[in-house]
Amino acid sequence: MAKLQNALAKKVPVWRKEVSAVVKKHGGKKISDVTVLQAYGGMRGVKGMVCDTSEVPPDKGLMVRGIPLGKITHKWPEDIFYLLCTGDLPNARDRRALTQDWSERARVPSYVWKVLEAMPKNSHPMTMFDTGILVMQRESEFVKAYNKGMTKMDYWKPTMEDSLNLLGKLPALAAGIYRMRFNKGKRIGPKKGLDWGANFAHMLGLKDPEGKLADCMRLYLNLHCDHEGGNVSAHACHCVGSALSDPYYAVSAGLNGLAGPLHGLANQECLNWVLQLKKKFKGVPTKKQLEDFAWETLNGGKVIPGYGHAVLRVTDPRFTAFVGFGMKHFPDDPIMKLVNMIYEVVPGVLKKHGKAKNPWPNVDAGSGALLYHYGLKEFSYYTVLFAISRSMGMCSQLIVNRAIGTPIERPKSVTTKWIKKTCK
Amino acid sequence: MAKLQNALAKKVPVWRKEVSAVVKKHGGKKISDVTVLQAYGGMRGVKGMVCDTSEVPPDKGLMVRGIPLGKITHKWPEDIFYLLCTGDLPNARDRRALTQDWSERARVPSYVWKVLEAMPKNSHPMTMFDTGILVMQRESEFVKAYNKGMTKMDYWKPTMEDSLNLLGKLPALAAGIYRMRFNKGKRIGPKKGLDWGANFAHMLGLKDPEGKLADCMRLYLNLHCDHEGGNVSAHACHCVGSALSDPYYAVSAGLNGLAGPLHGLANQECLNWVLQLKKKFKGVPTKKQLEDFAWETLNGGKVIPGYGHAVLRVTDPRFTAFVGFGMKHFPDDPIMKLVNMIYEVVPGVLKKHGKAKNPWPNVDAGSGALLYHYGLKEFSYYTVLFAISRSMGMCSQLIVNRAIGTPIERPKSVTTKWIKKTCK
Repeated sequence: MAKLQNALAKKVPVWRKEVSAVVKKHGGKKISDVTVLQAYGGMRGVKGMVCDTSEVPPDKGLMVRGIPLGKITHKWPEDIFYLLCTGDLPNARDRRALTQDWSERARVPSYVWKVLEAMPKNSHPMTMFDTGILVMQRESEFVKAYNKGMTKMDYWKPTMEDSLNLLGKLPALAAGIYRMRFNKGKRIGPKKGLDWGANFAHMLGLKDPEGKLADCMRLYLNLHCDHEGGNVSAHACHCVGSALSDPYYAVSAGLNGLAGPLHGLANQECLNWVLQLKKKFKGVPTKKQLEDFAWETLNGGKVIPGYGHAVLRVTDPRFTAFVGFGMKHFPDDPIMKLVNMIYEVVPGVLKKHGKAKNPWPNVDAGSGALLYHYGLKEFSYYTVLFAISRSMGMCSQLIVNRAIGTPIERPKSVTTKWIKKTCK
Repeated sequence: MAKLQNALAKKVPVWRKEVSAVVKKHGGKKISDVTVLQAYGGMRGVKGMVCDTSEVPPDKGLMVRGIPLGKITHKWPEDIFYLLCTGDLPNARDRRALTQDWSERARVPSYVWKVLEAMPKNSHPMTMFDTGILVMQRESEFVKAYNKGMTKMDYWKPTMEDSLNLLGKLPALAAGIYRMRFNKGKRIGPKKGLDWGANFAHMLGLKDPEGKLADCMRLYLNLHCDHEGGNVSAHACHCVGSALSDPYYAVSAGLNGLAGPLHGLANQECLNWVLQLKKKFKGVPTKKQLEDFAWETLNGGKVIPGYGHAVLRVTDPRFTAFVGFGMKHFPDDPIMKLVNMIYEVVPGVLKKHGKAKNPWPNVDAGSGALLYHYGLKEFSYYTVLFAISRSMGMCSQLIVNRAIGTPIERPKSVTTKWIKKTCK
């Protein structure tokens, strides 16, 4: 993987200079307050960390290294990872090099399968995935180099090596877990020469009626790549990594957060709502029927899953890309039709209802429908797909943070008693 | 475990009222700034979270629920966990109830051993420990109750149940890993009726010349219990848990952080320095020789491991307790003598040297010596002991946070570009 490393090796000294100049010039300037409410409230809105891989302006949605996601949805995950790490999209040759590199690293050590087979059959797929990552910790090149006394300036290099090894293996790990956990028959090994997304599609062994599954997986793995630094998975990964734990420890920790119902479970809930709808109307309802069902949901005190977002105030560009893909390749799929119809109807209902800060759909409103179309109907597995993709963001953040020398994360906690005394 | 749950059930509504009153009255008041330096610098010094289980005033050291650690070093870990959770020390009967409860939960499911046996023999003990916790995730009562639709008000209850199950099993898990990883012979099962620390001592199967090993383990598991909310392991655990991931996911994540060299590795480095010293002088040197060796270390651009602390500005009360134990029970142990002599000599040297903000020893300067005395000489295992103890802090923080309804943690990240533009 000389290409990506070389590209980074040129960038790193520039970033270091930039950061140290910024800190020298502006270090003492205040960029945020913390109020009592925020200290109790999960630091919501506290500008407390720097993340250069991506940002999410509420009025635009995800920007990867300054590029709006909508402009790069046709790119492959390899392009996205290169972009996340370096700030530049690769040319075709450099992209091919990364594809080949990951392909060469794709094989999962055999002991990982033994460990997973020793786990109870009904373990959650995310637990199996996180365990598979954690037990590979012994492969860490960072640990080896650290124990040999590498200098701080070099920390990012074995972090990158670990990241490439880990990311290279994740599709095979995830696909193997899918087939093992859901009794789909023997594992399908990675195929030489296939790119990351296509190899994953290949190893899952799903049916592929339109011959577009590889494209679907490339898109899926592209769209969930990163979402700033403060979301639970990225933040937990960063926090763990900041103690110089290696990427296996850090990514496993981050994904333990992604497994939480508030973080990675939403796409299941969305698809459930769509399936309920389909069942109730024995197929695709009329717009009027759908509108009534939406009101029924809201008046019952429930929310419409997949609509609204903690940060976004526009239609999530990831949703647009997913629905675009589905409507292009299988417009007659009833679930796809429903998802699209919901998008036509629900924002209007939510605006009239007036309670949602954001009536627009987020990524979760669309992502499940594609997987369902391909016969991937095991909802508990959906977060694993999310996890493969998001690992690119987590790893790139680890690499960048080691490159610029971000120190250990250690905010100060205060007690309720202290707050009462101080605020009196 | 009715006692502890009942005690908490009485406290929780009081805490809820208190927090909501504090937020109502003071919510908008500012308690901290974030500067550019802090955003790049791991939020060091940013008062960004609330933690009521413990605090670490720089001039006092750890206070557990407002009680200086020095006053409760004679207490058992059971007392400490009860205190962390409820804010009160238990009476003898309630402590006994917790001892019995943990003893009943002590057996580790057999699949955990199968998983650990499937891991490569040279896996790191911390990786094995974190993996053992993670694969037990399927036992989570929180997940079961969540999937049944429990209300938010009840979140703390299965969180407590999971915590008790997990904590009950940690000594057996850790001891089993010790014996498996370091070829100590067959696992030793937990013994009915033994308390947490004594059972751990029993299952390790170490030699115990003075008959004080159980006391030593009680002390060890007491002293590492908690250290506010912002340290890497507690914070990563809290962050993961804030997405409503269960305690197995959250504690495993936190311990992945503890495994990082900046967090949990220091006690190994301290003991190494002491052993070097012993080797160099073929035993215990004179004070003058030690003073010269300390100067040599400092003049070589190195630090003296175990002296200084990110937060503390006094002798760490945990150090005092450890050295006190060793000097009481085995004052002739050469390592113990050395540790004590270092304490007499090094602060003076550091003060003269003038570069350390804090010339006093921290916990790591003393903890390894006790373990070494008992023949526990496998340094890579030391963090596992730290981990068992710290899991009490992590679990109590999870319970309290669910009790008062702390929301998902989600600080905002900014880009370097944004900082440059905003600060211009």
